Amino acid sequence: MGAAGAREIVQMIHFEDIAPGETIPCGSFSLSRDEIIEFARRFDPQPFHLDEEAGRRSHFGCLVASGLHTQAAAIGLMVRRLADLDVVAGRSLNTARFYRATLPDQTYAVSVEWTGLQPTRNPSRGAATIVGRVHDAEGTLVADFGVTYIIRCRPAEVT
Amino acid sequence: MGAAGAREIVQMIHFEDIAPGETIPCGSFSLSRDEIIEFARRFDPQPFHLDEEAGRRSHFGCLVASGLHTQAAAIGLMVRRLADLDVVAGRSLNTARFYRATLPDQTYAVSVEWTGLQPTRNPSRGAATIVGRVHDAEGTLVADFGVTYIIRCRPAEVT
Repeated sequence: MGAAGAREIVQMIHFEDIAPGETIPCGSFSLSRDEIIEFARRFDPQPFHLDEEAGRRSHFGCLVASGLHTQAAAIGLMVRRLADLDVVAGRSLNTARFYRATLPDQTYAVSVEWTGLQPTRNPSRGAATIVGRVHDAEGTLVADFGVTYIIRCRPAEVT
Repeated sequence: MGAAGAREIVQMIHFEDIAPGETIPCGSFSLSRDEIIEFARRFDPQPFHLDEEAGRRSHFGCLVASGLHTQAAAIGLMVRRLADLDVVAGRSLNTARFYRATLPDQTYAVSVEWTGLQPTRNPSRGAATIVGRVHDAEGTLVADFGVTYIIRCRPAEVT
């Protein structure tokens, strides 16, 4: 394979490489009416997530996405952005709060920020917490959430 | 419609009707390999959720479902079980913790328990927190999670 092959070796991001405080943009998502209804049928069948007319009669005044769907769409973007992270496992999904409804066919931007690093009992792994934020096109915070991952430490160098 | 029609009127569950401390069984779910992979492609594309071989090489030793998928499947059952609850909106998804991996084609039982009731600034609504638990077929706790809902109070009687 030579040089071209060598370039394909992925440089994994380890626990020591994580820098809290930096905001990392992850792109944006949009949910169609059909996607909102399909997700809700499977995972959150409340009337205002399933039906246009029930949405109009609800607190929201229109069909809105499940908060679970908003969280999942945002985490999907985050995981793609952090694909090189050497994750052992997810430990917890931390509290997700919903400040505004997620509306059909609107664009929502996702950004994340590492907020906490903790050792674990296993010295070859650390626990790292990331906070994600979802903003609408006007820049208003729509939702935030957190995830704690167990991340591998950098392998010891052979000397 | 007469008596048969009258019987179809849904009696909504209001904030005052919620009794903390009672365990409410919500049924069980099972996730196929295809469902695990499809969900992960959209919302949590980590190698051990996407690919059998990557799962084998991972901490888990096999393909495992995303924690987000486990949480969503459990909430789907909970929402169906609590369909008569007079929900205004979801306020937060509280911390979900994952103690064991969710494996393909296994049966997981879901139960929920109301744990907290709080007034809100609007006297016609209350905030109610529910904790959900996912157990495997051996009765081992696999995951738990919480949701805080804003629930309508019973309408004042016309006297």
